Order: sequence, then C-alpha cells, then structure tokens
Amino acid sequence: MNKLDVTEAIILLKKEKSLTWEGIAGAINMSPVWTTSACLGMNSCSEEIADKLVEYIGLPSEAKAALMAYPTKEWDKSIPQDPLIYRLYEVVGVYGETLKEVIQEKFGDGIMSAIDFSMEVDKEECSKGDRVILTLNGKFLPYKSW
Amino acid sequence: MNKLDVTEAIILLKKEKSLTWEGIAGAINMSPVWTTSACLGMNSCSEEIADKLVEYIGLPSEAKAALMAYPTKEWDKSIPQDPLIYRLYEVVGVYGETLKEVIQEKFGDGIMSAIDFSMEVDKEECSKGDRVILTLNGKFLPYKSW
Amino acid sequence: MNKLDVTEAIILLKKEKSLTWEGIAGAINMSPVWTTSACLGMNSCSEEIADKLVEYIGLPSEAKAALMAYPTKEWDKSIPQDPLIYRLYEVVGVYGETLKEVIQEKFGDGIMSAIDFSMEVDKEECSKGDRVILTLNGKFLPYKSW
Amino acid sequence: MNKLDVTEAIILLKKEKSLTWEGIAGAINMSPVWTTSACLGMNSCSEEIADKLVEYIGLPSEAKAALMAYPTKEWDKSIPQDPLIYRLYEVVGVYGETLKEVIQEKFGDGIMSAIDFSMEVDKEECSKGDRVILTLNGKFLPYKSW
Amino acid sequence: MNKLDVTEAIILLKKEKSLTWEGIAGAINMSPVWTTSACLGMNSCSEEIADKLVEYIGLPSEAKAALMAYPTKEWDKSIPQDPLIYRLYEVVGVYGETLKEVIQEKFGDGIMSAIDFSMEVDKEECSKGDRVILTLNGKFLPYKSW
Amino acid sequence: MNKLDVTEAIILLKKEKSLTWEGIAGAINMSPVWTTSACLGMNSCSEEIADKLVEYIGLPSEAKAALMAYPTKEWDKSIPQDPLIYRLYEVVGVYGETLKEVIQEKFGDGIMSAIDFSMEVDKEECSKGDRVILTLNGKFLPYKSW
Amino acid sequence: MNKLDVTEAIILLKKEKSLTWEGIAGAINMSPVWTTSACLGMNSCSEEIADKLVEYIGLPSEAKAALMAYPTKEWDKSIPQDPLIYRLYEVVGVYGETLKEVIQEKFGDGIMSAIDFSMEVDKEECSKGDRVILTLNGKFLPYKSW
Amino acid sequence: MNKLDVTEAIILLKKEKSLTWEGIAGAINMSPVWTTSACLGMNSCSEEIADKLVEYIGLPSEAKAALMAYPTKEWDKSIPQDPLIYRLYEVVGVYGETLKEVIQEKFGDGIMSAIDFSMEVDKEECSKGDRVILTLNGKFLPYKSW
Amino acid sequence: MNKLDVTEAIILLKKEKSLTWEGIAGAINMSPVWTTSACLGMNSCSEEIADKLVEYIGLPSEAKAALMAYPTKEWDKSIPQDPLIYRLYEVVGVYGETLKEVIQEKFGDGIMSAIDFSMEVDKEECSKGDRVILTLNGKFLPYKSW
Amino acid sequence: MNKLDVTEAIILLKKEKSLTWEGIAGAINMSPVWTTSACLGMNSCSEEIADKLVEYIGLPSEAKAALMAYPTKEWDKSIPQDPLIYRLYEVVGVYGETLKEVIQEKFGDGIMSAIDFSMEVDKEECSKGDRVILTLNGKFLPYKSW
Repeated sequence: MNKLDVTEAIILLKKEKSLTWEGIAGAINMSPVWTTSACLGMNSCSEEIADKLVEYIGLPSEAKAALMAYPTKEWDKSIPQDPLIYRLYEVVGVYGETLKEVIQEKFGDGIMSAIDFSMEVDKEECSKGDRVILTLNGKFLPYKSW
Repeated sequence: MNKLDVTEAIILLKKEKSLTWEGIAGAINMSPVWTTSACLGMNSCSEEIADKLVEYIGLPSEAKAALMAYPTKEWDKSIPQDPLIYRLYEVVGVYGETLKEVIQEKFGDGIMSAIDFSMEVDKEECSKGDRVILTLNGKFLPYKSW
Repeated sequence: MNKLDVTEAIILLKKEKSLTWEGIAGAINMSPVWTTSACLGMNSCSEEIADKLVEYIGLPSEAKAALMAYPTKEWDKSIPQDPLIYRLYEVVGVYGETLKEVIQEKFGDGIMSAIDFSMEVDKEECSKGDRVILTLNGKFLPYKSW
Repeated sequence: MNKLDVTEAIILLKKEKSLTWEGIAGAINMSPVWTTSACLGMNSCSEEIADKLVEYIGLPSEAKAALMAYPTKEWDKSIPQDPLIYRLYEVVGVYGETLKEVIQEKFGDGIMSAIDFSMEVDKEECSKGDRVILTLNGKFLPYKSW
Repeated sequence: MNKLDVTEAIILLKKEKSLTWEGIAGAINMSPVWTTSACLGMNSCSEEIADKLVEYIGLPSEAKAALMAYPTKEWDKSIPQDPLIYRLYEVVGVYGETLKEVIQEKFGDGIMSAIDFSMEVDKEECSKGDRVILTLNGKFLPYKSW
Repeated sequence: MNKLDVTEAIILLKKEKSLTWEGIAGAINMSPVWTTSACLGMNSCSEEIADKLVEYIGLPSEAKAALMAYPTKEWDKSIPQDPLIYRLYEVVGVYGETLKEVIQEKFGDGIMSAIDFSMEVDKEECSKGDRVILTLNGKFLPYKSW
Repeated sequence: MNKLDVTEAIILLKKEKSLTWEGIAGAINMSPVWTTSACLGMNSCSEEIADKLVEYIGLPSEAKAALMAYPTKEWDKSIPQDPLIYRLYEVVGVYGETLKEVIQEKFGDGIMSAIDFSMEVDKEECSKGDRVILTLNGKFLPYKSW
Repeated sequence: MNKLDVTEAIILLKKEKSLTWEGIAGAINMSPVWTTSACLGMNSCSEEIADKLVEYIGLPSEAKAALMAYPTKEWDKSIPQDPLIYRLYEVVGVYGETLKEVIQEKFGDGIMSAIDFSMEVDKEECSKGDRVILTLNGKFLPYKSW
Repeated sequence: MNKLDVTEAIILLKKEKSLTWEGIAGAINMSPVWTTSACLGMNSCSEEIADKLVEYIGLPSEAKAALMAYPTKEWDKSIPQDPLIYRLYEVVGVYGETLKEVIQEKFGDGIMSAIDFSMEVDKEECSKGDRVILTLNGKFLPYKSW
Repeated sequence: MNKLDVTEAIILLKKEKSLTWEGIAGAINMSPVWTTSACLGMNSCSEEIADKLVEYIGLPSEAKAALMAYPTKEWDKSIPQDPLIYRLYEVVGVYGETLKEVIQEKFGDGIMSAIDFSMEVDKEECSKGDRVILTLNGKFLPYKSW
C-alpha cells in the first residue's frame, strides 16, 4: 500500500462514513490544512498520528507505514488550471514582487520558509458575501554570507 | 509618462530620500502591500491617492495620470525563480489541492476571489527566528448555475 | 462512481436513447450550456438537479453523488487544437486587449467574473450561412484597494 | 509610420483630448469593439474609415496608410496573465468541450468562424453588481468533404 | 465502438485484405485524402458514406455510428517530429510570412479557410526523382468589419 | 547592410513606388512566392537575380551582397498565431498522418523534400467566394538503408 | 504484431541468445547502425532483409510485416536527457552555426540530407582512452529557386 | 571588446577581404571547424592562436583578449529551426537510442565526450549529388562507480 | 525483469527487512550514494556487485542481469518540484555562473565531468540545526582545440 | 548605478587590473564562491564588505548602495546550456531521487536549505587529470506539522 492507495482509501471511507476534514483533524488533534495535506499524501505523519488516523478513519493496518513514509511533493500542472488554485497562482504572479519588497523591508535579505511553515483557512461571515481568510506562517530565513 | 516610468521614478526617489514602503503607505493611509503594488504598477490609484502619492514622494505632476491608469497585470516568469517568490509558488503547488478541499468543505463549490481581495504582511518575533505572517483575505464566490 | 464514470455513462445512454443536450436541459429546467457542462463533469449539481438528471437519463443511483461532487476544472491542451475550440482561443488572443480597453472604459478597473457567470448559444438563420451567437454574461468585479 | 506607431499616437492623443473608444467609434460609425481593435492594430480599415479616424483623432496624414495595412495578428502570452483576459481564456478551457457539444448539436459538424465574426460588449445594470454582456457572432462553417 | 476503435479495425482489415487508401476511396467515390482522414478519425462521414465504408471494408455494423460522429481534431506533437510531417511544418515556418504577403496581395485582408477546404496528393514522374504534388484548396474568407 | 536591412528597404520602396510582389517577380522572371521569400530574407539570390532586384526596386548597391547571402531560416512563433498562418499549421496538424499514409502508399517509405521544393499560389474565382489554390511541389526522397 | 512488439521481442531474444547488434548486422549484411535502428523500429526493412532478420533472430513469422512497415519516427524528449544522447544534442547546439558556415562555404546554399543518409560508429584505440568515431554521410541538397 | 564584438568584426572583415574559413584555418594551422567555432565565439584561443588570428584577419589589438576569453556556450533555439541545423537535431532524435546501443555495445557503459572532442567536414564528390561527410571524434568516458 | 522491476523489488524488500541504504552499501563495499543510484536504476553494476546485491537483499536471480544492464538516465520533471530536489536546482540556477567563473579561474577553460564523477552525503551535527554536507568530485576536462 | 552596472564595472576593472576572484575574496576576507556571486549580483553585501569591495577593486562610490541592495535571483535558461553548468543540472536530474533517499534516511523528512547555505570549490591534483571538488553545506530543515 503506497501513499496513493491510502489517499484513495481515505477519500472512499470519508464519503461512506460522511467524515469531514475538520472532523478528522479534530480526532488527531492537528489542524485541518495539515491533516488534509497528509491524507492527500503531501506530508508524512509521526507514528502516533498515523495510528490515530488509521483508527479514526478505519483504514487497514498496512496504511500506517504509507502514512509515515516521506512524500515526494510533486504537482501535475506547472501553471494550475482549476479556478480556485489558479487564483492563488495569480496572487503570486501579481503580488510576488510586492511581497519581496515588503517582506525584505521588514526582515532584511532572506525568504519566508515553505518548510518551517504552517497555514490556516478561516471563514469571515459578511453580509455582502463571506470571506476566505488564508494565513501563511513561515520562518524568516536570512541569506548567509560566507 | 507611463506606469513603468513612474515606478522607476518612485524607486529612485525612495532611495534618495530614504523612504520606506511602510512610510509611503502611512502617508496615504493605505496598507503597505497595496501601496507597494500600486507603486510597482500593479494596481490603479483613485485621484485622491494619486495626488497624495505625487506630493509625498515628490513625483512630477505627469505621474498622476499614470498612477490612475488601469494596469495590465503581467509577470515575467511563469514559474518564478527568485527564492522568495518561488517558495510561494511551491506552497500553491504543494497545498493547492488541500486548500481546494478545505475551502470548499467550509464554503461550498466556489473560489476565493483574487479581485475582491486584500493581503497583509506581519512579523511575529520569535526567539528561534522571526516568522513571516502572510494573510490573504478574499471574498468567497460561489459558482452559479443557470 | 466518479465524475468521469458518470460522464461516460451519460454519453452512452444519450446515444442509445437518442437524447439531446437540449432535451436533457429542458427536462431539468436548466440551460443547455450549463447542463452539458455539468454532464461533462465541469460543474456540480444541486441535489434536486442531480435527482432529475439520474431519473431522466436513467443513470444508476450511485451517479447522484458524483453529479453533486465539486469538480476539479482542468483541461488537457493549454493551447487548444480542435478547430472549434481554437477559434475561441484565437478570439481571446486577437481581441483580449481590445476587450480590456472597452470593458474597463465602461465599468472601471476590474474584470468580468468567470464564476458568477453564465453563457448561451443561439442560432441566427441567415441566407448566406447561419450564424452562431454566443452570449457570455459575467458579473463585473471591481478591484479593491485597501 | 507603421501600425505600432499609429497605435501609440492614438493612445497619446486619446489621453490628451480625453477621447473615449465609444466616442471614436461613434465618429466613424462603427462598433466600439471593432474600432478599438483597429486602433490597437489588430484590424485593417477601409480608406473611408481611415480618413475619418485620421480626421477625428487628429492623426498625422501618414497614419492613413498604416491604418489601412493588413495586420499580423499576434499576441504575447500564449497563456494570458492579465486577470481580465485570463478569465476569458479560462472560460474557453472550462467550457470548450461543452460549446463543441452544444454548437455541433445545433448546427452539425463545423465551427464558428473567427473571421466572418463580430463582437459586442454591453452593460447590464444590476443592484447586486453590474454585469458584462459579451456577445460573439460568427458564421457557422460546415466541414467540407471531398 | 468509438472512432479510435474503428480506426484500429480499419488498419487491421486493410492489412489483412491488402486494401489501399486509393481503393477504399474509389469504392466510396471520394478523394483518397479525405477518405484516409475519415478512416483515421479526423473527419465525419455522412450516413451514405458510412454505409459504403462499412460494407467495402467489412467493418462491424457498430462502426457506422462512430464513422458518423463529429471528431475532436487534436494531434499529439505540437511541433511534429516524423520527418515527412516535420517538412510540412518547416514549409509553414519558412514560407508563412511569404504566403501571407502573396495571398493578401491577391485577395485582400483575410485568410484561406481550413474548414471549407480540400487537398489532393499527386505524383509527377521525373527522371531525376519523382515529385510529390500537394494541392490545397481553401475558400478565401475576408475579415469582416462591424 | 544585412538581410534584415534589405528587407526593410524593400518594404519601404515597395510602398513608396506602389510595387507589387507579382510585379517584382515578373521583372526578375521568377515566381511570386520565391521572389517574396527572397525579399523577406528567407532565400538567397544568384548574382544575376540580385542585380535585377537591385535595379528594378531601386535598392542601394550594397544590397546586392545581402541578397546573395545564404539565409538563416528561422521563425518567431513555434506555434504560429496570425490566423492565415495558423490555418496552415492546423492543416499540418489535422492532416499530417493522413498525408503520411497517402504519400507513402503512392511513393514508398520516404518524404517530400522541403529543399528541392517549389510552391505556387493561385486564385480560383467562384460565385460563392473565391478560392485560394496552394500547390506544393517537392522531390520525393526515399529513405536509404545501408 | 506492431513495430513496438517486434522491438520488444528482439530485445528479449537478443538477451536470451546472447546476440549482439554487430552479429545481427553481419548476418543480414547491413551496417550495425542501420540494423539496430531497424530493430528499434526507426527504419523499414525490405522483404529480403525482413526474412533474414526473422530467421537469424528466431522471431515469429508475424514479425515480418511489422519489420517492413514504414515507421513513424518520433522521440520522447525534445531535449534529450540520457547523457550519451544529450552530448550529441549539445554538439548540435554548440557547433550548429559553425557547421552551417563550413558546409555552406564548401557546398553552397543548401543542407545535408537526413534521409539520403548513412552513419557509422568506429572505435579508435588510444592509450589515453579509446575514442568514438562517428561518421555521418548525407547527400548535399541545394536549395532550389523557382 | 567582447566575444560578440569580435565575431561581428571578423564577419565584416571576412566579407571585405573575401577571406574563407578554410583560408583562415590554414593561416593559423588549425582545422576549419574549430577555427570557425572560435571565430563565432564558441571556443577560446591560446595566446599564440589569438595573435595569429588578429594578424591574419587584421583585427584591432583589443580583439586578442576576447579571443582568449572562455566562452559561455549557449544557443538560441532549444529545438533548432534552420533546416541545415534541424536535420542534425533530427538525426540525434531518430538515431539517439540506436547510437546508445551501438556505442555501449562496443565500449561498455559510458558516453562519448563533447569536450575532449573534435569534428571535421569533408566533401565526397558523387555524380548523383555530392555528399557531406561529418566526422565526430570524442573520447569515450566510462561511468565511474564508487 | 527490467531495471524498473528490480527497483520496485528492492524498495519492497528494503521495507520488509528494514534494510537501509547505508547498510546495503556497507554490504557491497560501495558508497551509499552510488549504491542507492544503482538500486534506483540510474547506474549499472559490475557482475561482482550485482551478485552481492542479489544475495544481501534477497532478490530473485533474474535481477542480476537487470542490475548489470546499462541504464537510460532520464528524469521526469525538467524543472524539479519536490522541495529537496528543487533546492539543488535552485543552487545550480543561482550559482551556475559563479561556479563557471571560479572553476575556470582555477582550472582553465573546461568543465567538471558528470561521468568520471562521485558524490558523498555527510551529516555535520550542529546545535543550531544539523547540516547536510554534499561533496561532488568530478574530473576536470579541458576543452580540446584541433 | 544598479547591480547590473556594478557587475559590468567589476568585470572591466578585474580585466584591466588583472585581478582574480581569489584575490578579491582574500581582500575582503570572504570565500571565493560567495565573493564572486556577490560581484555577479546574486548576493547582497553588508556595509563593511561593500566598502572593502569598492576600495579594493576601485569602484565608484555609487557602487556601494548597489552592492548592498537585495538581489532578485533569476537566471536565463531554465534548462542550462553552457556545458559546465549543464553538467551540474544533469547531476541534479540523475541523482535527485538518490539524494532524497540518502539525505532523508540520515536526517528524517525535510530538505537541505539553499538559503542557510555555503559552497566551496577545491582542486585535487591528480596525475590522471585534476579533479574539481565542490562542497555544498546547507542546514537541514525538517518539515513542520501543525
């Protein structure tokens, strides 16, 4: 059973048992974004979390090793097409240089880590239409000179 | 004077007068991210803001029309290379499907707007290394059926 | 049964029963364009519409959940090749800047939504050759400043 | 003076004299979309229209020949990036197969011409936000067999 | 049975029965180029022609509907590699602008249709090596202004 | 003076003196397609033809060497965009395999040369719309085995 | 049995019977390069050679027709990656213009045919490391003017 | 004076003085292919050769340092278009796997160096059309294991 | 059994028997990097090493020939996406020209071989976070002139 | 004076004064690789280092600010072509998965930082040909879960 098989099994069981990503995340005490990414095969679980996931979702025991395996993080479309994902790509394109200016003015020469990193999704209710609040939190890494 | 000329003039004057994006944003009462993007030619200003920018930065009066012009939002590298910008692209690649799952579970079938949209950069001081907090705030747009 | 399986089943039953997209659309009281896109897996149905589609076309009951699932909207050829679709791409290429000028002159700085959006196909009979009338109707979204 | 020079001259004079595309179109008795595309160098004018454009906008007389020249219709980004233009590309991607199904069901095997073709932009005022109405009108061309 | 299945069946039967494209074309009273393209799934047949093809080649009766279906005309290599096909692509690249000049000088601003179009292959015997004569015949479509 | 300079000079003089490609071709006793391609810098002239071109068009004498130089045959858009040229590319895409089948059935395993090659453009007047007749004539080159 | 099946069968039998490309070439009296390319499906055999190959290698008799079929010559990576093949691509990149200068100085305006073409691989033993000698032999084809 | 300036100067002087690559190569006692590539900026000269080139061609003395500089070997079209260069690319595509098989059968696992490498162009006169003989000579480099 | 089958078998047995790459490398007396690359199918083994690998890992005897086969070294993503591999690509992009300058200053005009080449991975423990030490060791190959 | 101007000035002065990267690095007490990258505009200097560089090389005083500016790290060829740089890209392609396996076995799930990173070039003299020793030293960054 590899990571892909486990993802397919999770998707199926989630539909059958009417589970939600929020619910799964709550059961393993992790955030919904990280939990979903681990279930989709884009992050590796500790043994403890893998055990809880297997139990809560009702996965076969062979799934545990696959959940703990270190993933190869690759994606299919180098320019994404699904509108929800493309809009995020567009934000990076339109505001990329702006973010470089603003972050480096605040922090110095360096980058925001995508590894020592977390992300949250929140909902702000609003009479003119609810708003998606996406919060990225990454360690600032200054460039080294040597 | 087109948008590109104005951006170059701003960059020059900003260096000469030791201005900061934060300072410029404060002077026009807008957020630093939006202000920087308008100065880099990726957003259009209202007449009032254009007037304030011209005055605070000391731009020639011909800059006003260019600041108010509606920009063509294009970027050079469809897969970005600068490490700061690439890391954001990588986040979209690695977490794109995850965000689709989590946002659509919370909001239904639709997307987060990149037009009715704002973004902030904050600094979280931390003894193990400061953290960049990036907050995206976009209206949820449900797909229409007809 | 995923969206792809449902699409294949619909295509087959449509041929066997000599159904038309117009006829299916009429039976569920939606427009032919939206109905076809939902049948091809590019839009999600409400429960009510899914029920009607299953009944009218004679799909197995497992199709209902797949019709209601939120689609990943992706396409195969980033530059389309089929002549009918390429001509539309060519129109976007040749008239893209023109439309930007004309729409933004009429509405201000912003875009036409592709989400809060509908589209119709009509036939104008004409002695020199019939004409295809394609009407796109999208909400204007003004850029926000913040 | 080539087409590019003329376009730049038009853009400049339009700004100086506060002309609008609608106004220019009215003065030459053509539609705003076609007029704008001819001014941006994507269509050729008849002698009569070229004369009127030169007079109304106040272009130098050498502009006439360039307005009448047959354009090379090319665009810069094979996948557009400006959000207004990208949304149109996305519509072609998401609904391309759907339009092929619906058009060919109505008309038979063939395509909608992008040459014997016209397009209009209208504004539908709406309390929830105005709507852009884009109407494409192209001759249906049936495939020939031989 | 879809168009691909029919093409494979034709290729097989053609080899078994030692048929030729010329022979098949003769039997259905159409040209060899069009006939071959229809057999390879790149054109749709009228009912009458489909009946004749099924009979002459000895295809199963289910092939008829697939032969009549409207094809999606797509190709695999956007820059072709097989030397015979590449040479044609090279001709378009080397002589594209030349043809634009010569055709538009003769016909005005417009294009040669690839839809209202036919093509023939002939052999000119020659002592220094036979020559391939390829004749393309397409309706001239003038650009419309509106 | 390189080939590009000569092409620009020819385009200018052609406009000033109201020459046509047909007229230039007649004056040097070559076909219009080849003559145009040589003037656009895509073929090299013999000394005799270069002399005639310089004289007929009224080019400066330095143009002679550039007309005789061997060109580098390159084109800008690997997938052409101008509609007239794209339609030819589309023909290669849609009918490439068909032509391979038909030519190789007639001639054996080999290709049509794009070097030992000529091409003509003719006009067929027709009440339903004139037709462009494009004739390609290339030597058949059989594959060698060794 | 198509060309791909035959190639796989040859690779298998070659390993089982410890054949070499040199040995196979010797048995059919052709050069090793051509023989290998025919076995890999990139060239077609005459009936006589196909018979000899089937016999020497011990292929099933259905292989004969596939060996005689005219191949579609396509390759997977438009920029090759395997180091042995990439080095050849690099030679074309680094020395392409040089070869154009040297060949056209020697032969006039034209090209080296890749169709009326042969190639040999030799080994030059050398104390500092053996050397690969690759000899390409192609007919010079002068450009035609018309 | 950089390598590009020197190349332009050489091309100019070569034309003015009617030099040939063969002649230049003879004067510096190197092969025509290497000499041409050094003159086109794709190889670096020793001091002795640079002196001879400057003298024979009549270059300004500043050219010497540029001729000795180590070049950046880059090319413009990753898939070449000029027919002479494309044919070589096609040979690599069509025969790449074949050469891998034949070279590695003869030499073991490794590659032909493109660095410890030389190349010659010869002319074989032939009544049916002269032939270009291209000889590549590269050191075999076996893969190391460690 | 081809190289891919052997790789899959190794991955499976490694997991079942809890082997490590370090352990496998130790057992065959080679370095971990080379051993891993051979097990992943990117290098060929000598007979002696193949025997040892088969024995230590417990592979079927048919694996031996595949381990000894010369690999085709190809990779899937020409711009890698997995963050660990992308960082290495980024280093080549950011420091490529720098390395060219520094290596060629030290060694003269030439390159570092990727064939006569080895690589090691070491761990440097450090209180602020362990460090990865990657050492590449390649023979310097000077460009030849001829 | 921007980073590009400074790089050009450094290259010129370095040639005129016969400086070396090693010499410059020694004068500012930094490593040759980092020093070269800062001079080529790919890293930013502290004020102290910028002062030393300006003085040692003899740059105009305006160069100081440009040396201290934070660079945009971009490169021209996403697949490099210069042989020295391509070989490094090839190493990443051939050994990328291997390095992922070996590094993650040693360190856990994470990456080697390209930001908190240094690199050295050494020369190992060897009778069979000197060897380039390239040492990359990057902090290991474990993936975070949250």
